[in-house]
Amino acid sequence: MRFETKFFGLSTGGVKIVVMHPDDAFNLGVKQGDRVRVFPINEVGRIKEPGIIAIVDFATNEELLSKGCVGLYDEIGEKIKRDLPHSGVELIKANRPKSFSAIKRKIEGKTLSTQDIIEIVKDCAEEKLLNVELAAFIIGVHINGLIDDEIVDLVYNLANSGDILDFGEDCYDKHSTGGVPGNKISLIIVPIISASGLLIPKTSTRAITSPSGTADSMEVFANVTYSKEEMLQILEKEHAGIFWAGSMNSSPATDVLLSIQKILSIDPLDLMISSILSKKMAMGVKKLVLDIPVGPGTKFPTIGKGKKFAIRFKEIARRIGIETTCVLTSAEQPIGHAVGPALEAREALRLLHNPQLGPSSLLNKSTDLAGILLEMAGKAPDGHGKELAMEILLSGKALQKMRAIIQAQGGNPNIRPEDISVGSYSIEIRSEIEGIVASIDNHSINQIAKLAGCPGNKKAGIELEKKIGTKIQPGDVVFRIYAESQTELDAALEYYNSHPPIGMGSMTIEKI
Amino acid sequence: MRFETKFFGLSTGGVKIVVMHPDDAFNLGVKQGDRVRVFPINEVGRIKEPGIIAIVDFATNEELLSKGCVGLYDEIGEKIKRDLPHSGVELIKANRPKSFSAIKRKIEGKTLSTQDIIEIVKDCAEEKLLNVELAAFIIGVHINGLIDDEIVDLVYNLANSGDILDFGEDCYDKHSTGGVPGNKISLIIVPIISASGLLIPKTSTRAITSPSGTADSMEVFANVTYSKEEMLQILEKEHAGIFWAGSMNSSPATDVLLSIQKILSIDPLDLMISSILSKKMAMGVKKLVLDIPVGPGTKFPTIGKGKKFAIRFKEIARRIGIETTCVLTSAEQPIGHAVGPALEAREALRLLHNPQLGPSSLLNKSTDLAGILLEMAGKAPDGHGKELAMEILLSGKALQKMRAIIQAQGGNPNIRPEDISVGSYSIEIRSEIEGIVASIDNHSINQIAKLAGCPGNKKAGIELEKKIGTKIQPGDVVFRIYAESQTELDAALEYYNSHPPIGMGSMTIEKI
Repeated sequence: MRFETKFFGLSTGGVKIVVMHPDDAFNLGVKQGDRVRVFPINEVGRIKEPGIIAIVDFATNEELLSKGCVGLYDEIGEKIKRDLPHSGVELIKANRPKSFSAIKRKIEGKTLSTQDIIEIVKDCAEEKLLNVELAAFIIGVHINGLIDDEIVDLVYNLANSGDILDFGEDCYDKHSTGGVPGNKISLIIVPIISASGLLIPKTSTRAITSPSGTADSMEVFANVTYSKEEMLQILEKEHAGIFWAGSMNSSPATDVLLSIQKILSIDPLDLMISSILSKKMAMGVKKLVLDIPVGPGTKFPTIGKGKKFAIRFKEIARRIGIETTCVLTSAEQPIGHAVGPALEAREALRLLHNPQLGPSSLLNKSTDLAGILLEMAGKAPDGHGKELAMEILLSGKALQKMRAIIQAQGGNPNIRPEDISVGSYSIEIRSEIEGIVASIDNHSINQIAKLAGCPGNKKAGIELEKKIGTKIQPGDVVFRIYAESQTELDAALEYYNSHPPIGMGSMTIEKI
Repeated sequence: MRFETKFFGLSTGGVKIVVMHPDDAFNLGVKQGDRVRVFPINEVGRIKEPGIIAIVDFATNEELLSKGCVGLYDEIGEKIKRDLPHSGVELIKANRPKSFSAIKRKIEGKTLSTQDIIEIVKDCAEEKLLNVELAAFIIGVHINGLIDDEIVDLVYNLANSGDILDFGEDCYDKHSTGGVPGNKISLIIVPIISASGLLIPKTSTRAITSPSGTADSMEVFANVTYSKEEMLQILEKEHAGIFWAGSMNSSPATDVLLSIQKILSIDPLDLMISSILSKKMAMGVKKLVLDIPVGPGTKFPTIGKGKKFAIRFKEIARRIGIETTCVLTSAEQPIGHAVGPALEAREALRLLHNPQLGPSSLLNKSTDLAGILLEMAGKAPDGHGKELAMEILLSGKALQKMRAIIQAQGGNPNIRPEDISVGSYSIEIRSEIEGIVASIDNHSINQIAKLAGCPGNKKAGIELEKKIGTKIQPGDVVFRIYAESQTELDAALEYYNSHPPIGMGSMTIEKI
């Protein structure tokens, strides 16, 4: 059936909605919530195959929508407009895609065939699956898991759902499995590696379950949203960049899954492997260092679990042609003091300016991991990568490189740490007692930062003034929360009070 | 924050949407897809606690929505209008409900506490959980299961999410676990039981994964959508009725779960027990006969699995005070010939008019199950219930009672089978060969009926002309498909051809 179009100027933020008159819907045999396939048409017929899948809403208001016309939300309207000139759209009823049978097989505990995975990924890429169907897949994988062969199939197909870049064998990258707050090391590692002369096209996803992803923090300095072509121009010039992976048709099917994982705050390990590797494969990365924070609050509560994951990741990466060094890192407390996009950007920039002022956890972790990449590249002999990384940092070359990257990505290269503004609603929390910080609860830190508005509000976040082993006097500031609204500040503070993130103790561990 | 309201006249069919100006949303700290709580207000303040949870969409079109105003979809607009006079709404940001932690525990394979279940059910009832979160719960239960204690807790809390009726100890009902097409026996059993003088307030859900539920078929004769008060008036008069359980605040939290199970076509056994029993408990049912079709295409492929389920169901029902007889029934082929709301209603009415004309499968199954209820009630000695049921049917009293029920529910009591119209797009399929029907594929039958438009289009469906053991000559009509559009008829026919539901054979089973 053919319809005129009306662009409503409404947007869901993700799901594509087409609004129909109930009579038209009846004639097409669809109800609210059903899927239709929408083809832009011109005088000579269909102009865009295979069409765009959208979900049906009804208009019960004749003034808003008359029969013979469909209303388009921005998510589909923008795509249709791109195909102008068009003289309307054709709608056909779309049935549940075949890949849902494969999803059900995973829920039943079966191993998926290569064909199953091809279909699931294809339907993710074409956005044919409903959000609840994607949720069913994610939970099915979370509970029943994937075997290595399934993950390898997923990686290949997810990567091939978009463009695959090729920079030859010398393409480096770093990634973290997350879970430790304040892990802004990419903002230090990328300029170090780049300053050493290596290519490092760092793409990152935005925060999934954490308060800030690398893309969120980098965005404080510069634009991270680039098309593939624009990114290639930046890489041509600087041989480095820190980009959001979502805007460059890099494994778009992965983004569809990640969007639902984010809503559910569920990031199954097997899908994490396929997400990371599909993005790296699409970017042409050939050598990778993977930071695996281990400890309470991370995805790997014990070293044993981290190690098992590392061995599996390394092997799957090998099968798809990415040489990987996995590094288990300590996650007993945040890296540095700052958590939240702007606060992390500020802390990283301070370190690039004055490495000798620390924070030492950020300095050490960044140079450890950068050192491993330098050794993998043969820039430093085994065991001497960290020295070289530190040398590059102290020489000011990393800062210089970061400025060049910021400039290439459209930011202000001369930005100083004090130029970065943080949440205008803030509170300082002071200790009422004397003692020594004995433990930090990362989960609580993350929750406080998220309730304060992270990662949506870039200026929101926290500063952990006192870290493990630090002596505290009554009246000392131990914690700061920043938000962009009183509501969020209150919510974060309430959580702070009910889930205190700082555990105090004395130096005495045991009396006998 | 307070806003003026605009009723857009848009409807999703389920999800409550509030459309915000992006600037207002930013000030409130919410994004698209986030949850807000909406309170109608008047001059003296909030007039509806605890407010209504809705999902945020954005309006990017100033003409449609200006700052300071929110647009309401019908699903929430209708509820707000009910609370008139109001002078606007107050919105607050709503965080992810605590019950999602319990859902995650189920996904992790943990047993839920009573408190967990109280919270999940409360958040279902208040519609606080996103569809993807509900899907996560359903899949988590589907894979990890529930223990009896969890189901008992679910039944109590689901039932108590709405009104609980009390008719004393003599309140009867029948239910089926489904899976066998054409199972319109409720339309025969209810009038038989009622004609015997017993109270049977039959509530039924609409089809979840099947082509037609009892409510869908009954709706062909009369209205099934009644408020609790209206239903009580009908029961007062006729001591029987066939109602849709969704409209009378009977276990509304169950309906929230069922709506997502329906989208996913997933009906986990443990949730089926809690859905059935919560609805029965809410209706004050004290004695129940449960029809458990067993065989390929049903939820119980083997008698062993059906029996295990029956024993479990009976015990859980006992714990919540419902005496149950479970009956394993044959599901090798459809009951009767007709599948689809109107076709099933017509076939049932024909049988009530002329029981001796059959179809015999429908006649026998209906009187078997009615007989069991009559025995449970002491109306007939053990082993003689079926005789009594048959007697009531043949006497015309069941037809008379059905007419009274139809009249009480606002339908035409004098409706004849030939008055019931069926799909105007239809096709007759004739056999090209000679043989004997050896097997029927119920799954294929269901798919064909659903592709033809069931249960949404009441007139859609199929007629299986030849059943197992019937001899077929070339040219004989073996199958009819009815639809309300050519598209649907074509889709159903295509499925028929690729998944032939009728297996032919000769009488010879084995030659030695």
